[in-house]
Amino acid sequence: MIKSIEWLGDRVRWLNTLKLPWAEEYVESDDPERIAVAIERMEIRGAPAIGVAAALAVALAAVKYGGTSVKELRARLRTVIERLRATRPTAVNLFWALKRVEGVVSRDYAGVDEMVREVVAEALRIYDEDVEVNRRIGEIGAKLIEDGDVILTHCNAGALATVAYGTALGVIRAAWYSGKRIRVIATETRPMLQGARLTVWELVKEGIPVKLITDNMVGYVMSRGLVSKVVVGADRIVLPGYVVNKIGTYTIAVLAARHGIPFYVAAPMSSIDFENTIESVKIEERDPDEVRTVLKSTYITLPTVEVLNPAFDITPPELVTAIITEKGVAYKPFDETLPVLR
Amino acid sequence: MIKSIEWLGDRVRWLNTLKLPWAEEYVESDDPERIAVAIERMEIRGAPAIGVAAALAVALAAVKYGGTSVKELRARLRTVIERLRATRPTAVNLFWALKRVEGVVSRDYAGVDEMVREVVAEALRIYDEDVEVNRRIGEIGAKLIEDGDVILTHCNAGALATVAYGTALGVIRAAWYSGKRIRVIATETRPMLQGARLTVWELVKEGIPVKLITDNMVGYVMSRGLVSKVVVGADRIVLPGYVVNKIGTYTIAVLAARHGIPFYVAAPMSSIDFENTIESVKIEERDPDEVRTVLKSTYITLPTVEVLNPAFDITPPELVTAIITEKGVAYKPFDETLPVLR
Repeated sequence: MIKSIEWLGDRVRWLNTLKLPWAEEYVESDDPERIAVAIERMEIRGAPAIGVAAALAVALAAVKYGGTSVKELRARLRTVIERLRATRPTAVNLFWALKRVEGVVSRDYAGVDEMVREVVAEALRIYDEDVEVNRRIGEIGAKLIEDGDVILTHCNAGALATVAYGTALGVIRAAWYSGKRIRVIATETRPMLQGARLTVWELVKEGIPVKLITDNMVGYVMSRGLVSKVVVGADRIVLPGYVVNKIGTYTIAVLAARHGIPFYVAAPMSSIDFENTIESVKIEERDPDEVRTVLKSTYITLPTVEVLNPAFDITPPELVTAIITEKGVAYKPFDETLPVLR
Repeated sequence: MIKSIEWLGDRVRWLNTLKLPWAEEYVESDDPERIAVAIERMEIRGAPAIGVAAALAVALAAVKYGGTSVKELRARLRTVIERLRATRPTAVNLFWALKRVEGVVSRDYAGVDEMVREVVAEALRIYDEDVEVNRRIGEIGAKLIEDGDVILTHCNAGALATVAYGTALGVIRAAWYSGKRIRVIATETRPMLQGARLTVWELVKEGIPVKLITDNMVGYVMSRGLVSKVVVGADRIVLPGYVVNKIGTYTIAVLAARHGIPFYVAAPMSSIDFENTIESVKIEERDPDEVRTVLKSTYITLPTVEVLNPAFDITPPELVTAIITEKGVAYKPFDETLPVLR
């Protein structure tokens, strides 16, 4: 099984997804700042994975800084938490995971050792829960998949976006291993090519049939009847069911609606933001060179041309058929069904 | 003015668009076969440009082969015409231009010299008409553009897709030079990146403001109200108004309809196929490595993964606001308005 992140007691080890599919490069570090940078650069990416990585970074800080005073360590960990909170603005799991760890940091402790132990324990609970939650999402979602389905997925909501297994790809994996003969169409997902690099790599590794298309072929494959279902992940879901996910998701949802193709979103409850409104969600605008180049090597246009580079878009609830969570499948109206599942 | 193709009397000279924007490389050849290869490789691309290039290739063959017998030259030119017809299957201008030249080849002549003269004259008429037709499309289309418009265009329907000036970019150029303060959003247009490489290059060269986006950002920019009109070209228009154009066009049209954004197609009458049905149009499937790589250099995925690579898609008439031709603007029902303009 692919493990994108691991806790080694005094270090964290992660698969640098920027190097895939050319190389399987693992990075080990005992430095919380290095993990923050890995999240910013997208060595670690995918909403659940960055939540887990951030929690582990705080645990690492606790182990590393230790010291003699609970008060001093608490202040230090809060600085680390603030730093991590600033890495990426859109995926809610980051804030959710840091809030959980901060809750533990804020408690009273008899001594530093106890505090370190509890912070590490909470981070590892978040880690273990992610694996378990993905497995449940897979199990539950697989029931929606039929033998012979061709499933279009976007970006990478797989093992490389979580600790292991994946959300959208968790559904696909579970359906495949339950014996359903399915096939996958993966969009390449410019600018960072997570579909071409990561989803293809994951699926080929497990022998699940996959075809790669460019992002602008989605309308074509749907109009030719080549897609029976869409399953994607989410970086944040805001009531009454707005899905904030990788740029391009909204375009796919509009096309799916036109062609009467079910559009499923697979995400853990930790991706559901029950507090904020869609207006308050910040869509990250990333480095323009991601668009001007392919993976920061070859320029594909004039190096000075203006570009837009929003990392996410927003799919409104009317275009979403159902949301698959570890607690069950939610149908519309999501602002009634999701709080019940919670 | 950018001239993508020129007739030099005994040679043809073209801008190798595959090298743009990195280099302005011109190729000169007296070999009709070399022009056929240039069309296949997409050194010369864009429906009007390949029609003109094919006509010039036959003219070149006439000049080059000459000989003593009209009958023999006719047979030879027909072989060249067949070869050129097989270069690319979708754009109708290729077949239209070759049919015109073939008509001239089929006539009776007093001698070879007269035949050569007439074939060359017909090819040059096609060439000159293309320049004039594009100018007219620009003039007519510019009236539909308002001051302050932000126009989204796909692929390259510019000077580099025609002899000069362009169809969709002809409209944009004419609007700009008539003093309208417009801006352009160009989609990069994977896999061959004609938007990023060619449209950006053409517009920056003339100082027309342009922003580049990846193909999967179209839904985002429309949902944010950043686009007021869409103008694209066409490789073939089949009655009652199906627009066969670069892969991704259909996706843009579906999104434009959802957002109430006018969707204009700019194309010469020579791109309108009054004879065939949409079912009979062959959508070219190109080399899978175009999708697996960026411009055949860097692999962006596993080199053996299966891909789809249709070069075109089909936009149905209900999604098309109007078709801008050199004879005027056609509105629905196109099967009534287009034959009248003809």
